[in-house]
Amino acid sequence: MKKIAIQGIAGSFHEDAARKYFGDEEIEIVECRSFQSVCELVDSDQVDIAVMAIENSIAGSILQNYSLIRDYHLHVIGETYVHIQMNLMMLPGAQKDDVQTIYSHPVAIRQCAEYIEKYFPNARIIENQDTAMSGKILSVDQLTDAAAIGNLRTAEIYGLNVLDSGIETNKKNYTRFWVLSKHPKQNGGSNKASLAFEVGHYYGALARVLNIFAENEINLLRIQSIPIIGKPNEYTIHVDVEYKSEQNYEKAIHRVLKNVSSLSILGEYVRAEIEITNQ
Amino acid sequence: MKKIAIQGIAGSFHEDAARKYFGDEEIEIVECRSFQSVCELVDSDQVDIAVMAIENSIAGSILQNYSLIRDYHLHVIGETYVHIQMNLMMLPGAQKDDVQTIYSHPVAIRQCAEYIEKYFPNARIIENQDTAMSGKILSVDQLTDAAAIGNLRTAEIYGLNVLDSGIETNKKNYTRFWVLSKHPKQNGGSNKASLAFEVGHYYGALARVLNIFAENEINLLRIQSIPIIGKPNEYTIHVDVEYKSEQNYEKAIHRVLKNVSSLSILGEYVRAEIEITNQ
Repeated sequence: MKKIAIQGIAGSFHEDAARKYFGDEEIEIVECRSFQSVCELVDSDQVDIAVMAIENSIAGSILQNYSLIRDYHLHVIGETYVHIQMNLMMLPGAQKDDVQTIYSHPVAIRQCAEYIEKYFPNARIIENQDTAMSGKILSVDQLTDAAAIGNLRTAEIYGLNVLDSGIETNKKNYTRFWVLSKHPKQNGGSNKASLAFEVGHYYGALARVLNIFAENEINLLRIQSIPIIGKPNEYTIHVDVEYKSEQNYEKAIHRVLKNVSSLSILGEYVRAEIEITNQ
Repeated sequence: MKKIAIQGIAGSFHEDAARKYFGDEEIEIVECRSFQSVCELVDSDQVDIAVMAIENSIAGSILQNYSLIRDYHLHVIGETYVHIQMNLMMLPGAQKDDVQTIYSHPVAIRQCAEYIEKYFPNARIIENQDTAMSGKILSVDQLTDAAAIGNLRTAEIYGLNVLDSGIETNKKNYTRFWVLSKHPKQNGGSNKASLAFEVGHYYGALARVLNIFAENEINLLRIQSIPIIGKPNEYTIHVDVEYKSEQNYEKAIHRVLKNVSSLSILGEYVRAEIEITNQ
């Protein structure tokens, strides 16, 4: 059975992402306290795979995770998108009128700010590292006057009742997760790649690289310049590209290499679809 | 005297940014509870100007603020960079051995995680919306067993002693702030512009725009594709460009307009320098 490291505990959106990616395959979730320890476990072969959030449609890219992935030389071997839907959960028997305190992750709290303001304007908000941890606290401490905000899996694991669903303000928010390994993807083809490169300081340096992609029918799905810490005015360009022909992609990479000062292939993998379902 | 709206309270990094930008000019800081209310005050002419964080060298772009600026049709009329340096502060007479609790903003806490782990592994951490607010709480509640983490201005305003300086892990972190107005920059020239545009779904659509910039000696300082919420696979491209000749820039904009499906000029202004000083 594959061991999958995630930041946070079972029941979190990271677990959702891992289960969505692996489908019916049985997996063992290994809980980690930080994204760094996730990377360490992969690096030291204590787990097979890591699943890590990399960007969110509202909050943007999680740059710290990009840095970690590069520092630990991990390879992207896949991706998955999770539609972020939030629920209000309490212990069985507890009622919404009893809510004095709401536990959740700061981003989840912001995502549900309108709901909280409307229904619980006086509740004390306590922030946790993890939506699932918030549910666990309710369960472990048997808090009947507190609610947690998180995903359905948290309610399932920690035996909570879901009192309200779809309480997030933005109904179309999703998070993208990368599936990471110590080794590049070995088998099967790829139609998507994530690359990082630096270009020279002359007019059109980046345009030249993008032209090479276009000439080889490689589609740009994402582009972002990321400042290089400690070097003001220098940056790394991150792109996700999609291609139909792996041969064209290889030809393009070869030409790109002649036009950049450095290139890292973060991974070549199969593109996942973004599915926004409505509850 | 100009009225300047900032998110948070006096003493925050936002106030640092406003004072850095306006230099010796006397300004009145107007404190706001949220970035949205900052925009509302500008929109309703209750203040002249807003100063708003837009990106951080470690955490990346603050996408929510981009959305707000576009929703309220504000104009960027300037920018400034603040080097983020953190300090441990307590009430006069209080000592580090007394620290039971540390108050700060979640991002500031993460930035000082190594210091906290080393010197205060058992302290209770309480997160606030604002580094300055953390200092104010110490002062208002006369907490002698608590410390706040924030900038020097907070210590100055709320009468705190600085016990340790430069406690941030990354010494070269900076935040970029935009100076925003209801109206575009009126006088003086510009050498930098922030633009947002959408391009068609064909190979090389973005490359074509970048080529136009290159041909007009316009330098690309930042580029980022931002997902359009609710429209998977569609995105807006945000760029910052720098130019020596305003005439070339105008010529380029005219040509770019023929190659994009929509273009917004967020602002045309004078470029600020990033200064990383060491304490």
